[in-house]
Amino acid sequence: MAVGTETGADANAETITASVVGGSGFTGGELLRLLAGHPNVEISEVTSRSKAGKSVGSVHPPLRGSDLRFTEPDDLESVDVLFAATPHGVSMGRIDEFFEVADTVVDLSADFRLETEAQYDEWYDGHEAPEYLETAEYALPEINRENLAGADLIAGGGCNATATILGLYPLFEHGILEGSAERVVVDVKVGSSEGGAGGGEASSHPERSGVVRPYAPTGHRHEAEIEQFLGTSVAFTCHAVDMIRGASATSHVFPASPVSKGDLWQAYRGCYEDEPFVRMAAGGSGVYRYPEPKAVAGTNLGEVGFELDPSNERIVVFSAIDNMMKGSAGQAVHAANVALGLEETAGLEFTGLHPVGAP
Amino acid sequence: MAVGTETGADANAETITASVVGGSGFTGGELLRLLAGHPNVEISEVTSRSKAGKSVGSVHPPLRGSDLRFTEPDDLESVDVLFAATPHGVSMGRIDEFFEVADTVVDLSADFRLETEAQYDEWYDGHEAPEYLETAEYALPEINRENLAGADLIAGGGCNATATILGLYPLFEHGILEGSAERVVVDVKVGSSEGGAGGGEASSHPERSGVVRPYAPTGHRHEAEIEQFLGTSVAFTCHAVDMIRGASATSHVFPASPVSKGDLWQAYRGCYEDEPFVRMAAGGSGVYRYPEPKAVAGTNLGEVGFELDPSNERIVVFSAIDNMMKGSAGQAVHAANVALGLEETAGLEFTGLHPVGAP
Amino acid sequence: MAVGTETGADANAETITASVVGGSGFTGGELLRLLAGHPNVEISEVTSRSKAGKSVGSVHPPLRGSDLRFTEPDDLESVDVLFAATPHGVSMGRIDEFFEVADTVVDLSADFRLETEAQYDEWYDGHEAPEYLETAEYALPEINRENLAGADLIAGGGCNATATILGLYPLFEHGILEGSAERVVVDVKVGSSEGGAGGGEASSHPERSGVVRPYAPTGHRHEAEIEQFLGTSVAFTCHAVDMIRGASATSHVFPASPVSKGDLWQAYRGCYEDEPFVRMAAGGSGVYRYPEPKAVAGTNLGEVGFELDPSNERIVVFSAIDNMMKGSAGQAVHAANVALGLEETAGLEFTGLHPVGAP
Amino acid sequence: MAVGTETGADANAETITASVVGGSGFTGGELLRLLAGHPNVEISEVTSRSKAGKSVGSVHPPLRGSDLRFTEPDDLESVDVLFAATPHGVSMGRIDEFFEVADTVVDLSADFRLETEAQYDEWYDGHEAPEYLETAEYALPEINRENLAGADLIAGGGCNATATILGLYPLFEHGILEGSAERVVVDVKVGSSEGGAGGGEASSHPERSGVVRPYAPTGHRHEAEIEQFLGTSVAFTCHAVDMIRGASATSHVFPASPVSKGDLWQAYRGCYEDEPFVRMAAGGSGVYRYPEPKAVAGTNLGEVGFELDPSNERIVVFSAIDNMMKGSAGQAVHAANVALGLEETAGLEFTGLHPVGAP
Repeated sequence: MAVGTETGADANAETITASVVGGSGFTGGELLRLLAGHPNVEISEVTSRSKAGKSVGSVHPPLRGSDLRFTEPDDLESVDVLFAATPHGVSMGRIDEFFEVADTVVDLSADFRLETEAQYDEWYDGHEAPEYLETAEYALPEINRENLAGADLIAGGGCNATATILGLYPLFEHGILEGSAERVVVDVKVGSSEGGAGGGEASSHPERSGVVRPYAPTGHRHEAEIEQFLGTSVAFTCHAVDMIRGASATSHVFPASPVSKGDLWQAYRGCYEDEPFVRMAAGGSGVYRYPEPKAVAGTNLGEVGFELDPSNERIVVFSAIDNMMKGSAGQAVHAANVALGLEETAGLEFTGLHPVGAP
Repeated sequence: MAVGTETGADANAETITASVVGGSGFTGGELLRLLAGHPNVEISEVTSRSKAGKSVGSVHPPLRGSDLRFTEPDDLESVDVLFAATPHGVSMGRIDEFFEVADTVVDLSADFRLETEAQYDEWYDGHEAPEYLETAEYALPEINRENLAGADLIAGGGCNATATILGLYPLFEHGILEGSAERVVVDVKVGSSEGGAGGGEASSHPERSGVVRPYAPTGHRHEAEIEQFLGTSVAFTCHAVDMIRGASATSHVFPASPVSKGDLWQAYRGCYEDEPFVRMAAGGSGVYRYPEPKAVAGTNLGEVGFELDPSNERIVVFSAIDNMMKGSAGQAVHAANVALGLEETAGLEFTGLHPVGAP
Repeated sequence: MAVGTETGADANAETITASVVGGSGFTGGELLRLLAGHPNVEISEVTSRSKAGKSVGSVHPPLRGSDLRFTEPDDLESVDVLFAATPHGVSMGRIDEFFEVADTVVDLSADFRLETEAQYDEWYDGHEAPEYLETAEYALPEINRENLAGADLIAGGGCNATATILGLYPLFEHGILEGSAERVVVDVKVGSSEGGAGGGEASSHPERSGVVRPYAPTGHRHEAEIEQFLGTSVAFTCHAVDMIRGASATSHVFPASPVSKGDLWQAYRGCYEDEPFVRMAAGGSGVYRYPEPKAVAGTNLGEVGFELDPSNERIVVFSAIDNMMKGSAGQAVHAANVALGLEETAGLEFTGLHPVGAP
Repeated sequence: MAVGTETGADANAETITASVVGGSGFTGGELLRLLAGHPNVEISEVTSRSKAGKSVGSVHPPLRGSDLRFTEPDDLESVDVLFAATPHGVSMGRIDEFFEVADTVVDLSADFRLETEAQYDEWYDGHEAPEYLETAEYALPEINRENLAGADLIAGGGCNATATILGLYPLFEHGILEGSAERVVVDVKVGSSEGGAGGGEASSHPERSGVVRPYAPTGHRHEAEIEQFLGTSVAFTCHAVDMIRGASATSHVFPASPVSKGDLWQAYRGCYEDEPFVRMAAGGSGVYRYPEPKAVAGTNLGEVGFELDPSNERIVVFSAIDNMMKGSAGQAVHAANVALGLEETAGLEFTGLHPVGAP
């Protein structure tokens, strides 16, 4: 018999029932993996139209120790929390139905990330359930913890946006940057799992290996989320690189007033010192001196760091996450823990591998 | 503050103190990672001559949440169990010293794997402490559990040998193969972490990426361990391939008497049905149909499977492990759990990632 | 203006007109690349139903210096030689049509590799044009040069078969192995381009990176070609590994009579000493001591080597090719050069890159 | 016998004798590969202190068809052109000696890239032969062709600088950017061969695979060369990514005056339309829509492209090269062709591979 879930259940805590709608893709699989190892969660149901009837383990090897099977995404079971890992545009059409079976809904698509219908229309197509936009809460506890407590509808952020926001938030929070007066250039590099399991020509191994491939020179939709939380638009460009898990954002900012390294440390520590899932990495010794995806792969950690370049009066900010974890499923479970009043780090304690990059 | 260890400690269980000698390499780092998350273990000391004084986290990112520092490998502290992750030839010279400070010693080198001095001399150079060879126990619980219980000196097996033995053991145990009368050809593919952190010209990224590089066409030292446990020599060839973690063995065997698929399932289930760290993967649907390192990366699992080829009266056996885990540190911790009477799967519950291969 | 074709045309040589049917996939692209740089060839037409109208360079970057465009595969132009890079089963249905427009046809599929209809039916489905099987010539000049001279219909071999045959042929040719009495085990590792441009779930970058994935434990169709040329069946197993270009075959053979290294060198030199596209690599110094795909990537070379293992009376033979070149398009152009009486190495002189593995 | 050099020698052209000092590293090997296939060049000597006596082919597989051997770097032979592929700081100490044996010297290190001793001291340590700085010519013909004709001492540019300069040069040449008044942010991603063959801990395969690793957040020495040719300093940050060959620069610029796409096309075509080694890639269809290293790997091409982002009044410029070719050895041979009055593209016609990334 294969290895089962991570033990450590606190026998006295309540057990939350959860379901995953759209469980056969990478994001769904990551949610299942985390929920299966969560001490307070019991997975009720996993749906997938394409794989209905198949064992979850036949698609997601980490779940081979369970006997979960995919079911059709109709007649959803009643649960405490429902996680939707469906493509953009699906949740907004089923949100009423979700709330009929669940008290809390965590959606990992872009459907409920933005605050107003006007914003949504500017970046996406028409919204089918705009009345939910106002109450939906963005899933990043580091910037939205208060609102997440007790929230009903939670929207997981985009991975590129998450990496960017984590890196820049302290600069805005502490007034080092004040808004659109200063330039903010963000250059993002992201892994192949971000494109999902379906793939396509450009995602095939022969075409996707060894790339530095620009794919969104301008106008990337994640700019909307970034703008929403930082209060300014950024110059944002994305590249696909050869890694499976990871989103790395290098931000080049030019503050209007001079700033010292002390100011920067104060801002970053002020925001993140007590955060369980943010770790500073700025200089130091060894191979992993600055934030990089390899150092956090498989974990719910975001690594953040910076360098000050006097000659240009430039601050270079680095931030790195695992796009599947803090950029997606890990963020969703973290937010759910906050919303449901559970231990915030429950089910998310994995510290990563070294060396990593596997097999 | 970064993520700490996996909680879930059973407050009533004893706490075992442990040390790691030679903690700065990959194997040492993997041991530290596992021990830091082990509910019954407290790490007393981590030594490294080359990195003495540096924080363990500066070398091993998963340990960045701890404040462990490397110390000089002299004046070792007294502990319940000492793990030696030093190069071949070092432990044998320090084994008396190790037993002065520890009740149990787990050595991950080849120094104590073989049973007799004659065997050792045949494959390696002269042994410095041959008196320990007889009582040392090979660390693979699936084939040596009884002897490991209460053992003082444990020798972790080689990763290629481990993968091979796991795949073939049931065939010998159930009489499907009887010995040297039948040919056994083993073709192994292994990842780059097997070469350690030091590297060298052939291990540099430009030279090691994308390879299928034979490096031990014949006469590989792991043959000694395989011969010791299976009772026959095998035709064994190793190749370096492009992965970081993983050891995969494809064994081609030609039994003297006909065998059916039912016979094979009986043999494999007979040996492994109740083993927490062996999982069968033989056919089925999806992407991961046969054993492969990617399905077990980061876990202590070994995947085993087979196909029967009537035309050649050949059985093809596949086995895959993570060379850092079941091929090394995971095996060591598993064996220590058995020897010390702890929960056998303690600290080893991680089920892996999907997709994996990171970042 | 970008770089054009490789100059060096001999102004006095004839110019052969060529077309490529099915030019949008990897094999078609490789043929186009080689033909564009061939001093004696002028490309008349490139067809592709899916990309008709698009520039060839928009699909195949090496052709960005040309103004070739894909056309519909109907109304084929008359040419001296037509190369078919279509999927298995297509050429056999169009072969009469091909011979209406071309004097020489080189087919890269499996349709005409086998000699008899009975053989074809054993391994594939029904053949639509069995009358062509007898006159079709297998494209590997190293074993079939005499028959290729002046041949009308040429069948490019499978890449795994090519690597295997190259490695073992001298042993049979020189009587070191005599036939099915002796065991021949062949363990193959192949790159992702072998799966073509279309890909699929298992070929996506997240799922295909870092693998050692058995995909044809037994019953691989290339066994038919191997059996045809070596006169014996082999125990053959294939694995997908993480490389884009490459096919590597490790053959384990157990000759009935003892053999010495001198015997082996004599056999291999006897067969390959004067072959422009086979290079021996057996031991020596440096990083590239034995045959490996990385040493021949992008070239039309096959590297072959061996080791003798007295303990098992085993010969381990290694052979490595670039599956896109000597395993496919390079082999086709080489065969066409022979058939058409051109300089045998024309258009195939590229010596490879170091380091390779790109970008 | 294996494949030899690319034929196509023009029997009437002069033959230039060339030597390579420091021929055992990656850059040296790349030079040898190009020179071996150059129709007008005969390699006289290849030196390497570490590999003296060994065959060049044992280190560089592409040279396995030749019988060149490394010799000690003393008593250099007289040649027409000497290529120095030695580490930074070596050529400056031997430059007089080089000019005693060669009429033309092409140095691939940083020793002679800058124009004045003051500049050199600002970015590097003290210069041993500053009197040569003024006459040395930067090797990039696209920006320095006139000065290269007949030059005696040529300095190959740094790969990151080359990629950056190629991308931005037209904007300055055509007055779209005028100088330091406008921000220029350059975010570079580079492959592992850039670190050379020696490697080190961070370059080992387990540590270097799958990275997005900042390694020069600020103060990168290549800024000096960029500043020298563009007339302005740039905000420059480098990252190591998982590829072997390649340097990709994404430049974010904010011109003082509005600019249209037409203005940009005019500038880029104006500079590059007739350049044999620069190719535009800006939008279009297929997988390779923008410049990327994978599209030019193994070639001497630089790909350049751009997008205009009205919202930020930002121009995003992409440029990609193979760091070993246009960023190093290819650039050197191209410059030597110009200096020596040879056909400019001689020996540099390779159009690349698709798919690429090998093996």
